[in-house]
Amino acid sequence: MTADPLIDRLIEIVGPAAVLTEAADMAPHLEEPRGLFHGKARAVVKPASTDEAAAVVAACHGAGVPMVPQGGNTGLVGGNVPFEHGREVVISTARLNRIRDLDPVNLTATVEAGVILADLQSAAADADCLFPVSLAAEGSCQIGGAIAANAGGTGVLRYGNMREQVLGLEVVLPDGRVWTGLRRLGKDNAGYALRHLFIGAEGTLGLVTAATLKLYPKPVATATALCGLDALDKVTALLRHARAWSGDAVTAFEFLPRFGVGITCRHMPGCTDPLEAPWPWYVLIELSSPRPDAGGDGGVREDLEGLLAEALETDMIGDAVLAESLDQRDALWRLRESLPEAQGFEGGSIKHDVSLPVSSIPAFIARADAAVAEAMPGIRPCPFGHVGDGNVHYNLTQPEGLDKAAYLARWDEINRIVHDIVTDMDGSVAAEHGVGRLKVGELERLKAPVELEMMRTIKHALDPAGLFNPGKVVV
Amino acid sequence: MTADPLIDRLIEIVGPAAVLTEAADMAPHLEEPRGLFHGKARAVVKPASTDEAAAVVAACHGAGVPMVPQGGNTGLVGGNVPFEHGREVVISTARLNRIRDLDPVNLTATVEAGVILADLQSAAADADCLFPVSLAAEGSCQIGGAIAANAGGTGVLRYGNMREQVLGLEVVLPDGRVWTGLRRLGKDNAGYALRHLFIGAEGTLGLVTAATLKLYPKPVATATALCGLDALDKVTALLRHARAWSGDAVTAFEFLPRFGVGITCRHMPGCTDPLEAPWPWYVLIELSSPRPDAGGDGGVREDLEGLLAEALETDMIGDAVLAESLDQRDALWRLRESLPEAQGFEGGSIKHDVSLPVSSIPAFIARADAAVAEAMPGIRPCPFGHVGDGNVHYNLTQPEGLDKAAYLARWDEINRIVHDIVTDMDGSVAAEHGVGRLKVGELERLKAPVELEMMRTIKHALDPAGLFNPGKVVV
Repeated sequence: MTADPLIDRLIEIVGPAAVLTEAADMAPHLEEPRGLFHGKARAVVKPASTDEAAAVVAACHGAGVPMVPQGGNTGLVGGNVPFEHGREVVISTARLNRIRDLDPVNLTATVEAGVILADLQSAAADADCLFPVSLAAEGSCQIGGAIAANAGGTGVLRYGNMREQVLGLEVVLPDGRVWTGLRRLGKDNAGYALRHLFIGAEGTLGLVTAATLKLYPKPVATATALCGLDALDKVTALLRHARAWSGDAVTAFEFLPRFGVGITCRHMPGCTDPLEAPWPWYVLIELSSPRPDAGGDGGVREDLEGLLAEALETDMIGDAVLAESLDQRDALWRLRESLPEAQGFEGGSIKHDVSLPVSSIPAFIARADAAVAEAMPGIRPCPFGHVGDGNVHYNLTQPEGLDKAAYLARWDEINRIVHDIVTDMDGSVAAEHGVGRLKVGELERLKAPVELEMMRTIKHALDPAGLFNPGKVVV
Repeated sequence: MTADPLIDRLIEIVGPAAVLTEAADMAPHLEEPRGLFHGKARAVVKPASTDEAAAVVAACHGAGVPMVPQGGNTGLVGGNVPFEHGREVVISTARLNRIRDLDPVNLTATVEAGVILADLQSAAADADCLFPVSLAAEGSCQIGGAIAANAGGTGVLRYGNMREQVLGLEVVLPDGRVWTGLRRLGKDNAGYALRHLFIGAEGTLGLVTAATLKLYPKPVATATALCGLDALDKVTALLRHARAWSGDAVTAFEFLPRFGVGITCRHMPGCTDPLEAPWPWYVLIELSSPRPDAGGDGGVREDLEGLLAEALETDMIGDAVLAESLDQRDALWRLRESLPEAQGFEGGSIKHDVSLPVSSIPAFIARADAAVAEAMPGIRPCPFGHVGDGNVHYNLTQPEGLDKAAYLARWDEINRIVHDIVTDMDGSVAAEHGVGRLKVGELERLKAPVELEMMRTIKHALDPAGLFNPGKVVV
């Protein structure tokens, strides 16, 4: 028995080893990966089954105690960590980690919320299938968190966001009732599409405990290239060209600026620029195909060669290198994936995760670059990301020589400048990382009142006591 | 001035020509296409702009008058027609018929709710794009209705349902406020995915006035074949084989029974069976590709030949015919598309629009055939449809010689037998046609109470006065 009857009840439900109350034990669950927020909690509790999760939620609900659902705690907007006041209970999905079913005939998998994304990818591959959501944190992020965040990543151009992979959900509602909506149907119009309420809601409407997800035939052949471009507006022309040339085979289309390639090659071991001369812009393009003959003549390799040859001829690109081996492919991807880490070596970075209509991206970057340079001369823009989806990580490295803390102190001011431009150009200020705690204020500032009212209406209807991840997404 | 102040107000908003109150004028708006329901209305009103639509809704809301949104009135479950009591106002979207924007660079179109589906398909094709939702009623159904119904059709296997095409919506909420959510972004996690509430809600949560939709590169080559199979379980094997062989190129995969092909060839002018011998089951398979070289060597034609040759060799299919011309392609599709009409010549038809996990379809049909034959000896099952999506139109033609009215009088009883089997096998009793008025009772009977409660919670939150299409979907 502890001095806290709620803790006693939680221990009764999940056992003493699964209720953490010591500061040291709770620590990994209280701070988000960038260190932007440092929370406190009354306890961290780890149910191992849907029944346990439902009982935990019912107990907290009965006691009027707010709850924070947490997966791998890799989110970048503070949606997955508790506030500083310490009254919240963190519900970790880590022990809900079974793959309940993987069905290569129907191309579906039913998995619990705590399954690590990379583990699902591997299990799918072992069954000659593909689970297509792929992102930097895949080695530690969990499926439930990826659903709550509607995770994006590098596969969205071809396969869609996490939302598009979800056929059905099992959810513990804010009062502890369980909704079992684990369907695996291609068509189902029997009532409202309730699953879409929970996808991307960042744990504010309930606790996802399991999901039925789509799988795809596994690609058997992949071809990857890095291209150098002399102007940003050629990036969107190249995208159109690639999709027209090879249709659905374009499975990745990422862009990088010279500054980003430069700092990555400077700071990250094993990263080199494979092109002879420097180019203002780079595009990493990958084709892949599940067709058994895709590795041979007429396959993706030949396709990529053909489309790059025509792009060179029409001056759409200035140079290109094709990966000749798996190692070379990994090296090209490492250039792209090491960029966020490389930025750390250049001082502070003020970040934006925005999206725009694809064709507006060159104009957006020009406008934003000019506006932030006016606000802070010497600031070093490093926009990169999933340009095929219209998603730009508009990151800004600090001016050389400036104090890092002084730079980061201007985070909100710079955010507002960039977000105003995004909003003016019909973009989103929260493309794939979500809102969490970080962008609640910006949403209130920028969203139409009627949309905020609708969000509050939904929140209040499904969580009338306001106990599920309060203060996140919508207030 | 009329004797009805609400009518006066509606005339003030949209003009006298756009407010119908005479029985003869209203008639086409009061009966659904199968003649299952014959409603009455206080008026049919046709706003020509979003502002007018908002004012109409506000006026009805202020007067406490229930409203029925209506598009092309092609729905098959009575969701789009008013009840018999005559107190409802029908709001027709017919005059909201502008294509506001069609953008081949971003592959998006923004269209008003009253645009005819076939008109959007044509406009997209003129811009070398594809709008992929295709269904029997496309010549008269409207985009707003297709969104409200989350329309399916023959393109779902490759492109998804209507839901998957919707990037953004403009909606008049039940109290007359307008939500402008016309985004055209590939990624947007700035708050709840409100659009998904209205897609498939059949007009019970608001009036969709416009949408931003996805377009795709236009297929430049198509190859179509009809195959004969000696056993139903080979249908799913053939689907797997086709998808493994040609990946995303499989854009249609429809199945038909011998009975269906037989009555279609007997009753429908111009329909003939292109295979030499009769087969118990038929599959219409189509590959298409947007690749510029898809018409030549290594293109979809060669693909289809290759996959059929292997299917013949492994006894997956017994015979096949490839369309050698556009006329022959049309003839193959006509066999499939004329089937529902052909059934009319054989007497009454009790219909089911169900979906199951694809691999369960052979077992479902065997169970359902046995159960309905026990309930009514001589009943003639005619299951057909989009088997690639797990969607079966499990239609039952009456026994020969039975009185049609006596047969149709057993509609509900037979429905319950079939729906119980569907539910037991984790399927949906409303796959692509929706719930409307026809299946409200079945949903209440078969859905888990917690899911019905969630639906009622959402309905009450967004339409607290209960004035939007009351009595449909959820009661």
